[in-house]
Amino acid sequence: MRVTVLGAGYMGGAMACVARRRGHDVRLWGTWFDDAMLEPCERGGEHPRLKRRLDGITLLRSGRLAEALEGAQLVVIAANSDGIASVMAKAAPLLPDAPVLSVTKGLLESPTTGRMDRIDVVVPERIGRPVRFVHAAGPAKAMEVSRGVLTWMHFASARREDAVACGGAMDGHGLVVTTSDDIAGAALCSALKNAYATGLGLWDGHVGADAHDARAACFTQAIAEMAALVAKGGGLAETVYGAAGIGDLHVTAAAGRNRAFGERVGRGRPAKEVAAEMLAAGELTEGYPAIATAARYARERGVAGLPLLEALEAIVWKGAEVGPTLAALRIGAVEIG
Amino acid sequence: MRVTVLGAGYMGGAMACVARRRGHDVRLWGTWFDDAMLEPCERGGEHPRLKRRLDGITLLRSGRLAEALEGAQLVVIAANSDGIASVMAKAAPLLPDAPVLSVTKGLLESPTTGRMDRIDVVVPERIGRPVRFVHAAGPAKAMEVSRGVLTWMHFASARREDAVACGGAMDGHGLVVTTSDDIAGAALCSALKNAYATGLGLWDGHVGADAHDARAACFTQAIAEMAALVAKGGGLAETVYGAAGIGDLHVTAAAGRNRAFGERVGRGRPAKEVAAEMLAAGELTEGYPAIATAARYARERGVAGLPLLEALEAIVWKGAEVGPTLAALRIGAVEIG
Repeated sequence: MRVTVLGAGYMGGAMACVARRRGHDVRLWGTWFDDAMLEPCERGGEHPRLKRRLDGITLLRSGRLAEALEGAQLVVIAANSDGIASVMAKAAPLLPDAPVLSVTKGLLESPTTGRMDRIDVVVPERIGRPVRFVHAAGPAKAMEVSRGVLTWMHFASARREDAVACGGAMDGHGLVVTTSDDIAGAALCSALKNAYATGLGLWDGHVGADAHDARAACFTQAIAEMAALVAKGGGLAETVYGAAGIGDLHVTAAAGRNRAFGERVGRGRPAKEVAAEMLAAGELTEGYPAIATAARYARERGVAGLPLLEALEAIVWKGAEVGPTLAALRIGAVEIG
Repeated sequence: MRVTVLGAGYMGGAMACVARRRGHDVRLWGTWFDDAMLEPCERGGEHPRLKRRLDGITLLRSGRLAEALEGAQLVVIAANSDGIASVMAKAAPLLPDAPVLSVTKGLLESPTTGRMDRIDVVVPERIGRPVRFVHAAGPAKAMEVSRGVLTWMHFASARREDAVACGGAMDGHGLVVTTSDDIAGAALCSALKNAYATGLGLWDGHVGADAHDARAACFTQAIAEMAALVAKGGGLAETVYGAAGIGDLHVTAAAGRNRAFGERVGRGRPAKEVAAEMLAAGELTEGYPAIATAARYARERGVAGLPLLEALEAIVWKGAEVGPTLAALRIGAVEIG
């Protein structure tokens, strides 16, 4: 099978490794930002982020997009949410009639409604053509995926058969793929979990190491609030209770930048200052803008009664004090539907 | 309100603190194993485990059970699962017609059916009288509960009004209580989570620190398998998706003895040896017997297709090798109902 991966960063490289391990004919195309990733690989060296050689994978720099997409039976899009619309706009006239498996997570502003919406909704609006999007959700860290450590991904598409086809192509060697037609639920889980993961980190900063109960309570509350948001967004609660929701929130909250950001803010430092500091250190956290985006999504959809998200927005974006805000947080009450 | 706590260990002490903080008239009765806990408290010192003084709480040693229970409007039972039947047998003739809030977690063998069953089912059979059990589930570490760190507990009772009454008595000062009539679901979650928490630790031992995906996958799988077991046991999946299931599994898997046990076994050491070593060090892990108990419960109820529980039982109780067993683990497939 001919598999083309667009984007040669962490996840693009990892997905190319997965496809290659399954024996596919794999082309990895780098965007105009990815030349530095591909250059050492072209000389037979390791991918600078994955620390792994990309043997047997055809590497194509940004100028060779037409060549990359020609005859592709499966396209994997692995740009970040800021870049996906422009990459897909360039790819649009060249895109074969094949499933487009997206590992991009986030929400974008719709040019039609002006509201925040799912990537699989907004990108076709922006590029003016339909795309057979399959959203790849679930707890998948690029390093672990590329190493073949057990990873559960959930592929969802409005056309279930596209999700199944992508699953069939990628499943195996440590990667377990489940599928559904609930792309709304899967894509929303992927977009929302960064916001909530940051919230768990707040407790580590505010209380210290002995905040296991509070972390677990907020993890549970996050799942309940995500289920309410997903239900309003046309998705299924069961998607939230699977790898897309529970699984991805777990991996995101367990460690990483969102947690580190939350911890520092939890110690009482202004969120803006912490974000600037992490940005300067090349550790940009997705959780910071994700909180604003999630809160905006909730408001635009009229989902009220999300005490955890409201507390996060107050602390991170409105300058509310951590201690009193967390003390006043009333979890345990979410209406779904 | 007159609140009597039976059992003066970690959780008994913590629940007594919670009740006292709410202004109740609290009596803390120690079992015949608890004299060492109460002795320093009687002299005005700290509870040896909670590291906290029990000011304003009436302390009663094991010989004074009648005095402890007289006029109690709420009884909290905080024995462990090995001890609850004998404590409740002694209390039976003295027990007022009041809700009995149980923080005891586990399954016991029914003298009637010979099968493993919930504590709220088996104890009344053993002591020959009905008990108005309210099961206290959710992520609640005694140290954090006693300190007033945010904690979400879920109280469930066949008589919903008893759960609500207990919630009304204990909620506040950091403790958030939700209630339901799904005692089956809540009690099963509490019993099953120790088994699954051990499973997450296996990955840390087997793969090392970079097993976030695998841990998240198994966390998700554990919730799915718990939902299947709860459904078969007459409970609701929604209980599993709340504090009783997701929340308690989160806190139990995040750290503690079950995880330490799993880690050592994951490194390839025989489970029996690790259990003996931890027992000798006074670090008995509940996860070790909990896996056998959960597997037996599943077999007795005819719940098949629980790949994670089967893998755990194979590794921990049947001497299966960790590497090949985890490599063959097929997650992502659970039928609920």
